[in-house]
Amino acid sequence: MQSHKSAKIEQDFQIRKLEISDKAKGFIELLAQLSICNSVSDKEFEERFREISALNDDHLICVIEDHNLGKIVATGSVFIEKKFLRNCGKVGHIEDVVVDTNARGKQLGKRIVEFLVDHARSMGCYKVILDCSVENKAFYEKCGLEHKGIQMGKYFT
Amino acid sequence: MQSHKSAKIEQDFQIRKLEISDKAKGFIELLAQLSICNSVSDKEFEERFREISALNDDHLICVIEDHNLGKIVATGSVFIEKKFLRNCGKVGHIEDVVVDTNARGKQLGKRIVEFLVDHARSMGCYKVILDCSVENKAFYEKCGLEHKGIQMGKYFT
Repeated sequence: MQSHKSAKIEQDFQIRKLEISDKAKGFIELLAQLSICNSVSDKEFEERFREISALNDDHLICVIEDHNLGKIVATGSVFIEKKFLRNCGKVGHIEDVVVDTNARGKQLGKRIVEFLVDHARSMGCYKVILDCSVENKAFYEKCGLEHKGIQMGKYFT
Repeated sequence: MQSHKSAKIEQDFQIRKLEISDKAKGFIELLAQLSICNSVSDKEFEERFREISALNDDHLICVIEDHNLGKIVATGSVFIEKKFLRNCGKVGHIEDVVVDTNARGKQLGKRIVEFLVDHARSMGCYKVILDCSVENKAFYEKCGLEHKGIQMGKYFT
């Protein structure tokens, strides 16, 4: 049975898709806690929002809003890659999961990841994957993911 | 200066975008060397080909054809993820790189990866990333990539 406390958290911190009005609720400042994100104009935000929205369910960004503060305190995204491999299979790629440092300890990160995993499953993906640092391995294991391989990368800027 | 041998390899093994006629040239059988890919009908192939083609330069699949055999002997893909992070940045995700076991030792894999990396750079990505097994780390280092983190995943099927 769900406790009163966790029911209250779910009520105060509802999960939903990103909306264009979320820029004014601190969405960009939240992303800046994860990596560089210090100069996005309203115009740039709206253009990118429309580009991503055009992919419909193939690119989902979800957020959790703190309804008492009117502030976005957690987010994550998943996009669906269409392959020929695995008999024209699909893979969900989870990216940019972050929880506001002031909103930790409420399992918001776990709810974000579970929401994204469920979306990938409902889209018919045969797997969902993500890259993270070794420090975040235990968190993602709690979300039901397993360590699979290594990430390689090359930065251009 | 390019040797006569490597010039001959580049002539016999040209790199280009995937074409719809490549299914008849063993493209699916090549993918099966990487993971399960054992039942793709012509109709399924054409439908997926059109879905991916609709993304234009945001999802590129390249192949190398052995012109003496009329057979696809190497392939790889990159898709471009549009983010809000990094000031509305873009990331190239490399996937499904494979070289035919009978065509190894000609640096075809390196040419595939360099082609995909160049595409991501030309699309304005701030980085290009991929996941692989520890065994393939040295190969990707030769292609100019560095070890960055770990991959986590969850299989649905």
